[in-house]
Amino acid sequence: MDFAFDARTEELRAKLSEFMDSHIYPAEPIFEEQLAQRENPWSAPPVVEDLKAAARERGLWNLFLPGEHGAGASNAGGHGLGLTNLQYAPLAEITGRSPHLAPIALNCAAPDTGNMEVLAQFGTDAQRKQWLEPLLDGEIRSAFAMTEPEVASSDARNITTSITRDGDGYVITGRKWYITGAMNPDCAIFIVMGKTDPSAEPHRQQSMILVSRDTPGLTVKRGMKVFGYDDSSHGGHAEVIFDQVRVPAENLLVEEGAGFGIAQARLGPGRIHHCMRSIGVAERAIELMCRRTLSRTAFGKPIAEQGVVQDWIAEARVRIEQLRMLVLKTAWLMDTVGNRGAHTEIQAIKIATPSTVEWVLDKAIQAHGAGGLSQDFPLAEMWAQIRTLRFADGPDEVHKRSLAHRELRKYK
Amino acid sequence: MDFAFDARTEELRAKLSEFMDSHIYPAEPIFEEQLAQRENPWSAPPVVEDLKAAARERGLWNLFLPGEHGAGASNAGGHGLGLTNLQYAPLAEITGRSPHLAPIALNCAAPDTGNMEVLAQFGTDAQRKQWLEPLLDGEIRSAFAMTEPEVASSDARNITTSITRDGDGYVITGRKWYITGAMNPDCAIFIVMGKTDPSAEPHRQQSMILVSRDTPGLTVKRGMKVFGYDDSSHGGHAEVIFDQVRVPAENLLVEEGAGFGIAQARLGPGRIHHCMRSIGVAERAIELMCRRTLSRTAFGKPIAEQGVVQDWIAEARVRIEQLRMLVLKTAWLMDTVGNRGAHTEIQAIKIATPSTVEWVLDKAIQAHGAGGLSQDFPLAEMWAQIRTLRFADGPDEVHKRSLAHRELRKYK
Amino acid sequence: MDFAFDARTEELRAKLSEFMDSHIYPAEPIFEEQLAQRENPWSAPPVVEDLKAAARERGLWNLFLPGEHGAGASNAGGHGLGLTNLQYAPLAEITGRSPHLAPIALNCAAPDTGNMEVLAQFGTDAQRKQWLEPLLDGEIRSAFAMTEPEVASSDARNITTSITRDGDGYVITGRKWYITGAMNPDCAIFIVMGKTDPSAEPHRQQSMILVSRDTPGLTVKRGMKVFGYDDSSHGGHAEVIFDQVRVPAENLLVEEGAGFGIAQARLGPGRIHHCMRSIGVAERAIELMCRRTLSRTAFGKPIAEQGVVQDWIAEARVRIEQLRMLVLKTAWLMDTVGNRGAHTEIQAIKIATPSTVEWVLDKAIQAHGAGGLSQDFPLAEMWAQIRTLRFADGPDEVHKRSLAHRELRKYK
Amino acid sequence: MDFAFDARTEELRAKLSEFMDSHIYPAEPIFEEQLAQRENPWSAPPVVEDLKAAARERGLWNLFLPGEHGAGASNAGGHGLGLTNLQYAPLAEITGRSPHLAPIALNCAAPDTGNMEVLAQFGTDAQRKQWLEPLLDGEIRSAFAMTEPEVASSDARNITTSITRDGDGYVITGRKWYITGAMNPDCAIFIVMGKTDPSAEPHRQQSMILVSRDTPGLTVKRGMKVFGYDDSSHGGHAEVIFDQVRVPAENLLVEEGAGFGIAQARLGPGRIHHCMRSIGVAERAIELMCRRTLSRTAFGKPIAEQGVVQDWIAEARVRIEQLRMLVLKTAWLMDTVGNRGAHTEIQAIKIATPSTVEWVLDKAIQAHGAGGLSQDFPLAEMWAQIRTLRFADGPDEVHKRSLAHRELRKYK
Repeated sequence: MDFAFDARTEELRAKLSEFMDSHIYPAEPIFEEQLAQRENPWSAPPVVEDLKAAARERGLWNLFLPGEHGAGASNAGGHGLGLTNLQYAPLAEITGRSPHLAPIALNCAAPDTGNMEVLAQFGTDAQRKQWLEPLLDGEIRSAFAMTEPEVASSDARNITTSITRDGDGYVITGRKWYITGAMNPDCAIFIVMGKTDPSAEPHRQQSMILVSRDTPGLTVKRGMKVFGYDDSSHGGHAEVIFDQVRVPAENLLVEEGAGFGIAQARLGPGRIHHCMRSIGVAERAIELMCRRTLSRTAFGKPIAEQGVVQDWIAEARVRIEQLRMLVLKTAWLMDTVGNRGAHTEIQAIKIATPSTVEWVLDKAIQAHGAGGLSQDFPLAEMWAQIRTLRFADGPDEVHKRSLAHRELRKYK
Repeated sequence: MDFAFDARTEELRAKLSEFMDSHIYPAEPIFEEQLAQRENPWSAPPVVEDLKAAARERGLWNLFLPGEHGAGASNAGGHGLGLTNLQYAPLAEITGRSPHLAPIALNCAAPDTGNMEVLAQFGTDAQRKQWLEPLLDGEIRSAFAMTEPEVASSDARNITTSITRDGDGYVITGRKWYITGAMNPDCAIFIVMGKTDPSAEPHRQQSMILVSRDTPGLTVKRGMKVFGYDDSSHGGHAEVIFDQVRVPAENLLVEEGAGFGIAQARLGPGRIHHCMRSIGVAERAIELMCRRTLSRTAFGKPIAEQGVVQDWIAEARVRIEQLRMLVLKTAWLMDTVGNRGAHTEIQAIKIATPSTVEWVLDKAIQAHGAGGLSQDFPLAEMWAQIRTLRFADGPDEVHKRSLAHRELRKYK
Repeated sequence: MDFAFDARTEELRAKLSEFMDSHIYPAEPIFEEQLAQRENPWSAPPVVEDLKAAARERGLWNLFLPGEHGAGASNAGGHGLGLTNLQYAPLAEITGRSPHLAPIALNCAAPDTGNMEVLAQFGTDAQRKQWLEPLLDGEIRSAFAMTEPEVASSDARNITTSITRDGDGYVITGRKWYITGAMNPDCAIFIVMGKTDPSAEPHRQQSMILVSRDTPGLTVKRGMKVFGYDDSSHGGHAEVIFDQVRVPAENLLVEEGAGFGIAQARLGPGRIHHCMRSIGVAERAIELMCRRTLSRTAFGKPIAEQGVVQDWIAEARVRIEQLRMLVLKTAWLMDTVGNRGAHTEIQAIKIATPSTVEWVLDKAIQAHGAGGLSQDFPLAEMWAQIRTLRFADGPDEVHKRSLAHRELRKYK
Repeated sequence: MDFAFDARTEELRAKLSEFMDSHIYPAEPIFEEQLAQRENPWSAPPVVEDLKAAARERGLWNLFLPGEHGAGASNAGGHGLGLTNLQYAPLAEITGRSPHLAPIALNCAAPDTGNMEVLAQFGTDAQRKQWLEPLLDGEIRSAFAMTEPEVASSDARNITTSITRDGDGYVITGRKWYITGAMNPDCAIFIVMGKTDPSAEPHRQQSMILVSRDTPGLTVKRGMKVFGYDDSSHGGHAEVIFDQVRVPAENLLVEEGAGFGIAQARLGPGRIHHCMRSIGVAERAIELMCRRTLSRTAFGKPIAEQGVVQDWIAEARVRIEQLRMLVLKTAWLMDTVGNRGAHTEIQAIKIATPSTVEWVLDKAIQAHGAGGLSQDFPLAEMWAQIRTLRFADGPDEVHKRSLAHRELRKYK
């Protein structure tokens, strides 16, 4: 057992931290300014492309991707192999400190990362050439269309979108919402979950299929909000209508009935990314809370000297330290025993992270007074984003039940 | 001791509930639609004026105001006297079920209510004629300018806005933010807190002064957000610059040094209104949570049959019942022993209400899945609004400390 | 709506508070001393009888009992009628401040109170003469035998003790535990819950029957502990074996199948007593917490000046004020609309009280340092006692589920 | 970074788990039985000596001790070197599953472990020969006398016990309480903290000195309780009077003024032991909770199928997994950068562990119904023991404040 990062990780952490200081943090106010001046209200501001170029130049590109396609391969002039989950995880944390800019700058933003993994792992050569390559190059963006407004989509059996074979193609009909990134006109490709066979056994009813944005019948209807945010800087969360959308049969991923399995496989690394980025968010919040309370005075002393505020700071530190270690261990398990062997831990971090980070953000907001709610600090928006994670990939409650079943099974 | 409402309260509750069913709830979707079509993005949609007329016609007007100006007086053809706090409180709860429409329809919306109380209690005849009358008639709206961006304004000694005597007038300079309602062009009058004598004893340094919106030097600069919401439907939360704003000396309320005392007097009834409306919000949330979980199925049964969801519903009910009784008792204390005698309870409900209602809303949101965060349900916006109450009139932590001091004093 | 106590209540509160000061608190150290010197380790120390005599002399006797048998009747030389629940509730709170001495001194201790109510309401004249009269006179004590070790007795259908008709008698066989008071040799009578007809509908299977302590076949086996306490000062919590215990048929309460109904009727007032006494416990704890933290210094100032401690004190006050109002309202509902109409509130206070008071005690203990855990302060023992209430009459979770069902039914 | 235990640790874990199954768990009921039959109510039952012999035979002895004196050295016929903190930590967890038997069986019980570390690190040859050797051999036991009843001893400046030089000796006068183990007649040696120079700078006022149990003037007065438990099976928690106790000058540890430093050094490994054992307690509790709820039925299904119970089980698993990783990381830091470098983590685990494990135990108790409180299950006693850890070595609140200061210092 050894809790030190390896040399490659340390080197990349140093390089990335430097990049945060030299490029990302200084770009934050520019980004805000450009957001207000966009022509298309759902496009990324131009500074994002500058950051992407700068990151790529430094080899800080596609770091999330393991194996032969991964960072360190051709695109990074490096060791010829991608990073392990354990190596990437601490880098994801650092990007979480500036969640609107750093992940996209490194081409490591959700949902593209998960989608690229799906294409890399399950795509045909043709699918990878058409969609994975431009994604890896940061030329297009992508969406993952799972959640439906009409049903509790945490239960995959509830999915109502149909994918029906018709001649040499499939016809897709259904309604999806909270499809992150899809309002962005650069989002060129949708991975859509639907049912090919409602009469099959529960976990073989679903399939996944690729749908190009410009396919007739696909309508990106409106942006769903998260609290009051439209998240337009990263493509929002769209409601999307699929009305008799016809795609070629070769757009199907793997085979009919494989959808649930692909969704499960997609979850593991994505969870680790989300969780580590969230820890980065929490670290930023702790820093802001400390700086703010040190700089303001009430009732005769800096707010940082109030016992209750110190209690928040200490609790925040104590909770985040625990959480980080478990996420890192989960990454290690993914690397060593795989998705299935890490099942309990992957669920555990999905349950623990949003509530822990939400708590830290709540206290940081409270320590800021009214400003904490405002557009002048990143805390309220961070809070809203983290709050969504208590639903993402199914509400925590579903995961807790499943985890409890596994625990109970030991004693049956 | 008697926990039944009196006859007049019951009569008004019935009348108001009927009005909610016949007018308010049906107007909610119209309101949303009109919001999207406004010319001035900070104006109230026209349906609001219709509702005001309908409410006034029914005597559901200015019910918040006690004493001779109160409901039941000339304007309501009634008993010649306003309602007590205890009589009004359960009505405020009912209006909280539709927080954007019902309070304003009844001319009982914050911050006007508190401002009208201040004018009724502390205003000169001239001040009342000029500002209180149109406010009571619902012709104009008003703002209360207290919080400042640069300091922890929970400590009144920190206020930096200056009110300086100069000849026959006062000159005001300072910066305020989160001035609720001030973005609305109908907001005609500001009650401004500032310092007339920074060298006086701590609670005699502050004064309050009336500033008409059109006074030169007053700039309504921008709308501050609350978790992404601009709250434009009720005038937002403005940042306001006072740059050498000159007003006649008779605009001062009471006298120099009276500001802190007026602020304290303003708090009591306002807290009760806020708290009861918040309880109404919680009741609406419980209803929505029940309806949603009864209507959706996951893993083979309605979500309402999940043990964890039932636990939320029960906890919500248990917490709200306790909270309501304490707020009602506080209203009774205000009526019988006054603001000062009710000090502990007024602080207690300020501390208890936001966190309790926030908890209920959080669970209701979680029970809704992603929709709970969206613009399609009122829950996320309600949550953001309630969250602000943990700061309003000073953060909870300041009130807890003060309450603890009073408790400890018993044993010294 | 009126939150003031009536004149009779105020008079009794004053008289009881005086009695606490003059008799109860001074007796606490004597009680502790005598406990260590008892011959029978399960008997009450002699000071208890002195206190009973003194209380009775002052008319502070059997105050819990409503109606014609109640305090104020012949035994108290008073108004000829017992107190209402609402009148008794604030007195129960005061007795809770010294939970080992005050309730028993006033002949208002559990489980006798509930048992006396059952006998008063459901007993025949003969049963009342034989058992109720000596109980009202404080000459004997009683037990209520419901909980069983082998099953989850929160579900009445699980009860395994059998009550079988056999000629002119009933034969009882079963095992009970946590039978409070039964270790005390003065505990002369057991009200036993068992099944007379396991094939009847679920809530008509159970019956209640009176069993005298000296009946052959009844064995009081051992004292169950609560954390490390044996609670020997008030008769402990016995495991009791009923091995072919034969009693006359007239010992049955009401009729076969009436057991569940009697148990339900017994719960209402008992809950109010328990909850109000628990609030008294919390008030004592707050007082102790304040006194202790004012008197001890660490890191240069009294512990009471630490922000975190003030937060505890304020939270404790805020929570207890809310809780008390709901319990009082529940008492009022019991008086005005009866047990059934107060169903939701009775469950709500059962759910809210133990967790709230437990929280207050935990903080009071923490504020005391190691002493808080010890026999030198009453806090740890109070905590253990309150902790049992999260199970008493069924675990909170069962009550929450039932309460949620009722809430959901409104929207079905 | 590597989350796998090394080979030696795995080997010892396997051996120890086997020993738990073959010896410790089977001894638990025997231990309980023998407890009831002891002559001296503060002695360990004889089965403990049997277990010690069996453990020692297997090389499961003194595993806690690092370096040359450690397990694996001469006394264990092993590798010649003690275990690292990281190697011992997972073994401590396993012993925590049977906290009354396993630690003492392996001669790894508190407070002896900390005392042996102090003697090994700071003792002279003579002190080690006289006291460390019989402690390492399990022939005597020891106590650590720090906490005082009269003051908040979390602030070392508050200590009132005096250690005064007088000729060739020191004279000790003071009162201590909660001196764990000291009621046991086998407890032969006390390490006593007192002040040699109240006028020195705060952290040089204190010294530590060795006092043999039989020294005149030392009176072990009474056993302090913890929630009703006297913990007599492991020597209780004594109040000890030092009345002009005279010891030779060479009994002083290191030098005058070294007391605070020794106390700090003693804390690190002890914390890790406590925390890992507590995690073992939690694991046992989770197991008991699962087994109990699987085996009992209420309302038509096993209690384990109730959603709320599953929520508890999942939360317990999620919290414990996080906590364990942080404690192991702390052990690794102790091994690699030492006590000082691990300061934040050592405080963090002290803060996190008791509250987390207490929560798990509370749920396990609740899942057991009344039995959970009783002497028939280990849960209530475990709970009481864990609850003391929120005070041990100073209340959590003091540690949180100190941790927050360190966090804030980063931004000053």
